[in-house]
Amino acid sequence: MDTTEQKQIRIALDAMGGDYAPDAMVKGAAQAVKDMDIHMFLVGQEDKIRPLLEKENYPKEKIEIVPASEIIEMGEHPTTAIRQKKDSSMVVGMKMVKDGKADAFVSAGSTGALLVGGLTIVGRIRGVERPVLATPLPTLEGFSLLVDSGANVDCKPQYLYQFAQMGSIYAKNVLDLEKPRVGLINIGAEKEKGNMLTKESYALLEESSMNFVGNVEARNIPYGEADVLVCDGFIGNTVLKLYEGVSKTLMKAMKEELTKGLYVLPTLALAKPFSRLKHRFDADEIGGAPFIGLKQLVVKAHGSSKEKAIYHAIRQCKTFMEHDVTAQIAAAVQAEKTEEKAAE
Amino acid sequence: MDTTEQKQIRIALDAMGGDYAPDAMVKGAAQAVKDMDIHMFLVGQEDKIRPLLEKENYPKEKIEIVPASEIIEMGEHPTTAIRQKKDSSMVVGMKMVKDGKADAFVSAGSTGALLVGGLTIVGRIRGVERPVLATPLPTLEGFSLLVDSGANVDCKPQYLYQFAQMGSIYAKNVLDLEKPRVGLINIGAEKEKGNMLTKESYALLEESSMNFVGNVEARNIPYGEADVLVCDGFIGNTVLKLYEGVSKTLMKAMKEELTKGLYVLPTLALAKPFSRLKHRFDADEIGGAPFIGLKQLVVKAHGSSKEKAIYHAIRQCKTFMEHDVTAQIAAAVQAEKTEEKAAE
Repeated sequence: MDTTEQKQIRIALDAMGGDYAPDAMVKGAAQAVKDMDIHMFLVGQEDKIRPLLEKENYPKEKIEIVPASEIIEMGEHPTTAIRQKKDSSMVVGMKMVKDGKADAFVSAGSTGALLVGGLTIVGRIRGVERPVLATPLPTLEGFSLLVDSGANVDCKPQYLYQFAQMGSIYAKNVLDLEKPRVGLINIGAEKEKGNMLTKESYALLEESSMNFVGNVEARNIPYGEADVLVCDGFIGNTVLKLYEGVSKTLMKAMKEELTKGLYVLPTLALAKPFSRLKHRFDADEIGGAPFIGLKQLVVKAHGSSKEKAIYHAIRQCKTFMEHDVTAQIAAAVQAEKTEEKAAE
Repeated sequence: MDTTEQKQIRIALDAMGGDYAPDAMVKGAAQAVKDMDIHMFLVGQEDKIRPLLEKENYPKEKIEIVPASEIIEMGEHPTTAIRQKKDSSMVVGMKMVKDGKADAFVSAGSTGALLVGGLTIVGRIRGVERPVLATPLPTLEGFSLLVDSGANVDCKPQYLYQFAQMGSIYAKNVLDLEKPRVGLINIGAEKEKGNMLTKESYALLEESSMNFVGNVEARNIPYGEADVLVCDGFIGNTVLKLYEGVSKTLMKAMKEELTKGLYVLPTLALAKPFSRLKHRFDADEIGGAPFIGLKQLVVKAHGSSKEKAIYHAIRQCKTFMEHDVTAQIAAAVQAEKTEEKAAE
């Protein structure tokens, strides 16, 4: 795609959210502006950000610090935090996006607060029932995009249909998949399996023009049977966290077993293979989880994001903007509405 | 417990269901009657069972073959299969239980058919809203009992409350846990987290006399935070299958990583540790998954059950009967109903 005529993309980054803030954010941003034609805003406490930024070598005009005195902590109640901490890095950053001062906002802070802020400050695209949190889930083949991974815990079939729609548009444009395979997470492979929600969602997806490949049983998720995995946010969040829990536990147990018994393996011999394994099941290279369906892009980076993950989240924003995914989603949702009206 | 005065426990075993039928069933039953004071019925095709049984060395009077000419296959529609295959090993076995000719029924065949048969042939205990499939899930500490692991995909908070109640009684009596810790699978640790179902269920569980330890996030399931894990059957089935899928994939990937690279490890050196690891995350020793809340005991053994798993499922039936778990559940459910009435 020819991007030369487009105006420079401006990304606001929450410098204060996440386990490695502000260090990882400053480094990730500095690296990003060196490699990409973008403008970055580091939102947060200037006295903490400035000294770190001064240590970095990058084109100075491409990063600005936007002061915000407060920080929304992980344990805070999302709605209360967004309402009360008007000068938090998260609220200030999202207001910039809302006011057109930035094109996208990235944060590794509280997911709950980011979702609330996304809905109340940035706002939904007209026609989108529920914006969806799309998290990349590592598989043997690469990864699948999990929609919804936790934004909407009580869903209707129409919501799941839109999750699939938005996930497909995102996967096609940002992840560069020609015809993303859409799968429905369900408790059986057959069409008639599932609960009320999945049965009705299946019927909607089957009739759509999306590349719907049917139900995906949880046991097959790690094999990468679909590019876009559709489910309600309760299921999605459970899948995401169980994935993480089982992987960690199993690697721990594996190390224990490999360093005892008849064939004692030196711990050193395990370091490399385990590091490679962790890498294979590591989402850091993929970027963050976009909150899709908002008027502007908001991306949730993992709480434990380091420099590399932040860098990739920024790159992801750039691709998103270059393909104008928001406009595509708005058009797709509008087309459905028009169709519905015509059918009435 | 003194069992000398109790009448001999009679267990009907589906000799035709499961990947290793009838061989594993015949061997498991033969070993069981050698070790335990029980009577076994092997239900199925006599011409297939008889020759295998004759090879075994066991007290002959303790095993009887009960002929059943048909087999319910894994892919069949559960309701249709139970209705039409009147002479299947599953239907014949469950009728024996219903008619008081056997005290319990064990099958490694189709889960769906077993659930339908349990409900329509054996029937619910009065006051039990929905019988629950309780599957042991391996953890670092041992295992947790997952209720519901797939019998009820659309649930009300009252169902989840009863799942917890029945799971607790089972865990106390059959698994010998003094005060089983009951946890609610949820997407956050805090009380206010979750969807409508889990929020309302939390409130019910919190007020109960059970040892409720609060929400358990999916990422903590492998650490064994609770003895009884409560959830709806859609979530439970997803957890169960994802557990299996992630474990398998990760072990495969680990083997790949450990046998390549700078430190090449011989495949032989991995055999023992991997076998131990598999063993640690193996439910075979625990027995099957009881379908709790029916008038008589029905146990689902894993489809890939071998002799050992069948043996343990039989032992599990014996313990269940000795503690008269069905009567305890009936009493507990009745007590709640009386309380409700009094409160009206």
